[in-house]
Amino acid sequence: MPGSSLGHAFRVTAWGESHGPAIGVVVDGCPPGLPLDEADVQRELDRRRPGQSQLTTTRAEADRVRIESGVYHGHTTGHPIAMSVRNRDARPRDYEALSQVYRPGHADFTFERKYGVRDPRGGGRSSARVTVAHVAAGAVARKLLAKRFGTRCVGWVQRVWQISGDIVPERVTRGEVEANAVRCPDPEAAERMAELIRKAKAEGDSVGGVVGCCVHGVPTGLGEPVFDKLEADLAKAMLAINATKGFEIGSGFAGARLFGSEHNDPFTNVGGEVRTTSNRAGGVLGGISSGMPLVFRVAFKPTSTIGKRQRTVNTTGDSVTLAAKGRHDPCVLPRAVPIVEAMACLVLADHVLRHQLLGAGGARGVPAEPGSGS
Amino acid sequence: MPGSSLGHAFRVTAWGESHGPAIGVVVDGCPPGLPLDEADVQRELDRRRPGQSQLTTTRAEADRVRIESGVYHGHTTGHPIAMSVRNRDARPRDYEALSQVYRPGHADFTFERKYGVRDPRGGGRSSARVTVAHVAAGAVARKLLAKRFGTRCVGWVQRVWQISGDIVPERVTRGEVEANAVRCPDPEAAERMAELIRKAKAEGDSVGGVVGCCVHGVPTGLGEPVFDKLEADLAKAMLAINATKGFEIGSGFAGARLFGSEHNDPFTNVGGEVRTTSNRAGGVLGGISSGMPLVFRVAFKPTSTIGKRQRTVNTTGDSVTLAAKGRHDPCVLPRAVPIVEAMACLVLADHVLRHQLLGAGGARGVPAEPGSGS
Amino acid sequence: MPGSSLGHAFRVTAWGESHGPAIGVVVDGCPPGLPLDEADVQRELDRRRPGQSQLTTTRAEADRVRIESGVYHGHTTGHPIAMSVRNRDARPRDYEALSQVYRPGHADFTFERKYGVRDPRGGGRSSARVTVAHVAAGAVARKLLAKRFGTRCVGWVQRVWQISGDIVPERVTRGEVEANAVRCPDPEAAERMAELIRKAKAEGDSVGGVVGCCVHGVPTGLGEPVFDKLEADLAKAMLAINATKGFEIGSGFAGARLFGSEHNDPFTNVGGEVRTTSNRAGGVLGGISSGMPLVFRVAFKPTSTIGKRQRTVNTTGDSVTLAAKGRHDPCVLPRAVPIVEAMACLVLADHVLRHQLLGAGGARGVPAEPGSGS
Amino acid sequence: MPGSSLGHAFRVTAWGESHGPAIGVVVDGCPPGLPLDEADVQRELDRRRPGQSQLTTTRAEADRVRIESGVYHGHTTGHPIAMSVRNRDARPRDYEALSQVYRPGHADFTFERKYGVRDPRGGGRSSARVTVAHVAAGAVARKLLAKRFGTRCVGWVQRVWQISGDIVPERVTRGEVEANAVRCPDPEAAERMAELIRKAKAEGDSVGGVVGCCVHGVPTGLGEPVFDKLEADLAKAMLAINATKGFEIGSGFAGARLFGSEHNDPFTNVGGEVRTTSNRAGGVLGGISSGMPLVFRVAFKPTSTIGKRQRTVNTTGDSVTLAAKGRHDPCVLPRAVPIVEAMACLVLADHVLRHQLLGAGGARGVPAEPGSGS
Repeated sequence: MPGSSLGHAFRVTAWGESHGPAIGVVVDGCPPGLPLDEADVQRELDRRRPGQSQLTTTRAEADRVRIESGVYHGHTTGHPIAMSVRNRDARPRDYEALSQVYRPGHADFTFERKYGVRDPRGGGRSSARVTVAHVAAGAVARKLLAKRFGTRCVGWVQRVWQISGDIVPERVTRGEVEANAVRCPDPEAAERMAELIRKAKAEGDSVGGVVGCCVHGVPTGLGEPVFDKLEADLAKAMLAINATKGFEIGSGFAGARLFGSEHNDPFTNVGGEVRTTSNRAGGVLGGISSGMPLVFRVAFKPTSTIGKRQRTVNTTGDSVTLAAKGRHDPCVLPRAVPIVEAMACLVLADHVLRHQLLGAGGARGVPAEPGSGS
Repeated sequence: MPGSSLGHAFRVTAWGESHGPAIGVVVDGCPPGLPLDEADVQRELDRRRPGQSQLTTTRAEADRVRIESGVYHGHTTGHPIAMSVRNRDARPRDYEALSQVYRPGHADFTFERKYGVRDPRGGGRSSARVTVAHVAAGAVARKLLAKRFGTRCVGWVQRVWQISGDIVPERVTRGEVEANAVRCPDPEAAERMAELIRKAKAEGDSVGGVVGCCVHGVPTGLGEPVFDKLEADLAKAMLAINATKGFEIGSGFAGARLFGSEHNDPFTNVGGEVRTTSNRAGGVLGGISSGMPLVFRVAFKPTSTIGKRQRTVNTTGDSVTLAAKGRHDPCVLPRAVPIVEAMACLVLADHVLRHQLLGAGGARGVPAEPGSGS
Repeated sequence: MPGSSLGHAFRVTAWGESHGPAIGVVVDGCPPGLPLDEADVQRELDRRRPGQSQLTTTRAEADRVRIESGVYHGHTTGHPIAMSVRNRDARPRDYEALSQVYRPGHADFTFERKYGVRDPRGGGRSSARVTVAHVAAGAVARKLLAKRFGTRCVGWVQRVWQISGDIVPERVTRGEVEANAVRCPDPEAAERMAELIRKAKAEGDSVGGVVGCCVHGVPTGLGEPVFDKLEADLAKAMLAINATKGFEIGSGFAGARLFGSEHNDPFTNVGGEVRTTSNRAGGVLGGISSGMPLVFRVAFKPTSTIGKRQRTVNTTGDSVTLAAKGRHDPCVLPRAVPIVEAMACLVLADHVLRHQLLGAGGARGVPAEPGSGS
Repeated sequence: MPGSSLGHAFRVTAWGESHGPAIGVVVDGCPPGLPLDEADVQRELDRRRPGQSQLTTTRAEADRVRIESGVYHGHTTGHPIAMSVRNRDARPRDYEALSQVYRPGHADFTFERKYGVRDPRGGGRSSARVTVAHVAAGAVARKLLAKRFGTRCVGWVQRVWQISGDIVPERVTRGEVEANAVRCPDPEAAERMAELIRKAKAEGDSVGGVVGCCVHGVPTGLGEPVFDKLEADLAKAMLAINATKGFEIGSGFAGARLFGSEHNDPFTNVGGEVRTTSNRAGGVLGGISSGMPLVFRVAFKPTSTIGKRQRTVNTTGDSVTLAAKGRHDPCVLPRAVPIVEAMACLVLADHVLRHQLLGAGGARGVPAEPGSGS
């Protein structure tokens, strides 16, 4: 009922504020026996970490994760996995001046109205720094999926402002993505994007864009109609990421411009497996994964914090002018890639487990199970 | 964990198959004292009902709702409200031929793989007929919102295929929407859309499009970060509707083409109320409603059932040709409008109640409450 | 969040009032492929039905169940199973005189305070008639358990007032229980109990007692520490039944009188299976089923409705005298047996499914699964 | 779905193993504005702490709590409150010898069967040390209840082995309870209990008993029928505590020995408030708090770890003899008192918030709310 948990079977509970002592997460429901160590999680946190390149904020955080429970002798035990990351470079004083002002595009006003109290230190719980928890939990989900199904989840920057990459979703590799600071697998577009981001930064402005993602090795059958469809839970997870404004799967908004005869993906038989010859559906049919790659895109607005002067009001309703100092990303897209991937992995891990509830009763009737008590 | 419930506080559990005896829903969590009768629900069901115009399927269903619990002397009691609608014009035999074929774009294949069994009668639980339950439950939510806050939720057809209406979201009225069979408030565009739908039908083809929606009178403070943000739950609800492929709120995907200095909505003081001078955010900031109108759009793919011949495979993997007969909509958009509205109302009602959990503790500290036991 | 749902994986949502049009329930999460028809459910409802014997209320209800979804060709489909029973012999007028009085021991006062409105017709939603839903849903759970594990759940009347049966829990059979109207497998005690109940009835009084229950064939491993322990969820389910005041498992309150050296059940090896030589634990260790029979007891208070004159107050606070007419059971114990069994089956079915979440990851590591997408 | 969360609105997620680095808990859903600091939590942890007296284990743990999020300037913010306690005196090596043996009465066998892996270090997650989390979270709930309603929750040791205190539940004060190491408010009985516990310890044996609890200042209306009745959720919470075997409320099992005419609590008018002249109901009617004090009891089995020699089997099924060394409590009752109180407070806080969902719609219709957006 409160909002800091995600998932039902693979259940994540996140906590922490941007400039509090730490950010953390508890993963409950991870099955026992999964090999897991801190390096698995650190690898993903390093991709989200601030200060990776000149394109990101200068806040210096090593973001070292500690696993505090749920792992024994290098394997998960089936019990809650608690992880946390200390905030080292918190500078709460940077924000004192902002405690009486509603920053445009930020949650200052809505948090204050909702809770009657607001932690102004870097936005407190409304800061994108809370996604440290998402990425840490997502690393566990990613490991589970990789181990069971060989699942690979690859995100990339598809567009920055009005610059689009020329990309075939199913072919993108992580290597191509990590090859440049923008995380766009089209190197030529990546260069233009980087230039634009630097220019926006220099001008005290910011830019948004679109992250694309393709998940290979998704088992058939994930998703729980009529409400917990796979694409529904994916959409929720993506719109829960800070600064997102849209989600589309497969053909998305563009698909609505086609005729049905153009849009339907024909089924075919590929070596005994039922597949489709195209993938406008994006890997789901009727809310359930089809075995084709999941392909989706997420829109991010331009960073709300900008150096340019803006008009706004303060908490007493007076009109004021604001020009941000502090440390921030002129474009969140490069660091958003691992966050999008993490959220996708969390949704998939949850649905993998939920699908198991149909258990032996799935395609195979309801036979007696081994280990029964009678 | 199973997928037929939506919401936490205003909780909906849906049941029923397209060609089974009935479709129904249980609404648990509606507060007591709300005036409610069957006419409130019937009004919305009539807008979703098949056979309203020449643009929809010819299946003849009166869709008369019965309320079977939770209402006493014309008011809700605080207990579960059970509602059901009989299926009258079910023709299960129409579908016998299809029980061995995977229809392209439909859930036949994924349902069969997931559950090991499939009800081929009109798609069973994968049919859009299940949205009778969504609309019935949504009518209760709509009444609650209207009564408490004067909330008005207005959806419309924004686009069909490549034909877009010229529409200002905040100004659309239900009267304009209901003025034509397409439910597009731009009458000139509506006419061209109707023509296109008739043409697609004549050619055995289908078209998709985009539904827009604007909710007025949303109280400030709804949404539960960090995961159950208002736009996240809206996105989920919309992607849970049959045939949807995308969701965007406020500036959406187009907003990602702007600079931050262009995108941020400046705050201003309007007669003592904090408002924004523009609404690119679409009514939410940081996952919480800002008091500005909620504005969002939902993409629908073209109807998967088409009369044109299509290639597919049957359950034994053989290649076959399919040409649908049966009864279906060449374009679901006009009937999708009340479904989108219903889902939005369900999400909002849930968040109105969840916000109450902060209770007296919200903006006003934690005072003693009246009626305490000590 | 509202209170009419039970279970997470095998999820039950109940609805209906004592003198409304019907009582119903939706079971969501039952795996597909389970053989199920109305007779399976009716059999259990017939054991709960009023008017079975002279010991029960004279309200005449056939309690015929209808299954309205989720079953196709005699097997569950994996989708919600909606069931309902019409109320035929409702006599709402019998209760008009009571609408202004708080009946001692009943929920009239608390319902009115909680909801601000009360349905006085037989107690509305506070009536034990709502357990029709529990028994109907429990019948599905029972079938699932029987089919998968050969589970047998046998309840009985252990005590009425101060008359106790001489009973060995593990040896009771359903045949012995159903052999008399009291449902006490000790025939001599049953006779004295029946006599006492008739006497209480004649005197306008009522009696309570204790129901015992033993479940054979419970697979090892059910229960989810640290909060959703098997005995915790059983305790909850039992205290959710109308008129219950206590729950104990295994040695229960009496076990607290022993020394540890007397109480511990020694482990032993029985043909390669680890078992205990005694069962003071009652079938659970650390919140998880051990493979030994589950043995527990539930205390029921004497029926609150009595013919004798009682002092109480009315809704305006005036002191009044009350002497019930209407129809009621002088002792709920005999009809409580199938309700206790049903609730136990619901808890077990939920935990059977939840245990599956550990899946292939349980005792056997996390291997690749068949049917994976890669 | 996994089992380490409790509550829906006031939601607790616990983590940690007995001999891992730490034990912790996340409280999500605590309303903002509640004054809270570490001393509030420490006070309760100190009552649960090992080594308080000669009657408890000699494990030396200061159990210092750290609050890591959700509190700002000494008040809760409405965001998750993360708390943790380091394990200082862990001695994992003490348990190496036990890793191949199933200790009678313990969860070694069931954990191993359920998870396929077991952390033998002090029982890992099955240890009662995990209740550090319960007590820490309960301290927050207690503060919320005290602040809003003046609620006082007082538990005590009612019985140890066969020695019962002479106690009137409604009159017990915390001062009387804390006056001796046994936490029995009957000083004479306390002395005999202490003597017995010392004797049991000396003999390498253990004893169980019964904890009683009375909660004053419970507002009327808490509890959500038909399943989430207040006593049902209390029963669950109590049976989730390690070593518990029974729960009863009000008259409990003894009440089942009375006639209805003896058992019903008559209503009366006390200065304009509806009260009952007796409290055999124990503070609940129909699953909802009546405004009378909550009175309940919980049975604890004798500690399973004993020094006396016991027969058991090892993991390969061979018969072995076991005599515990290590550190343990010969009687858990004195330290169980704050745990029982904590769990009661968690259940009540959850139901206080859930009751708010009926909101303005409760006894007062559904009026427009202040701060609405229209």
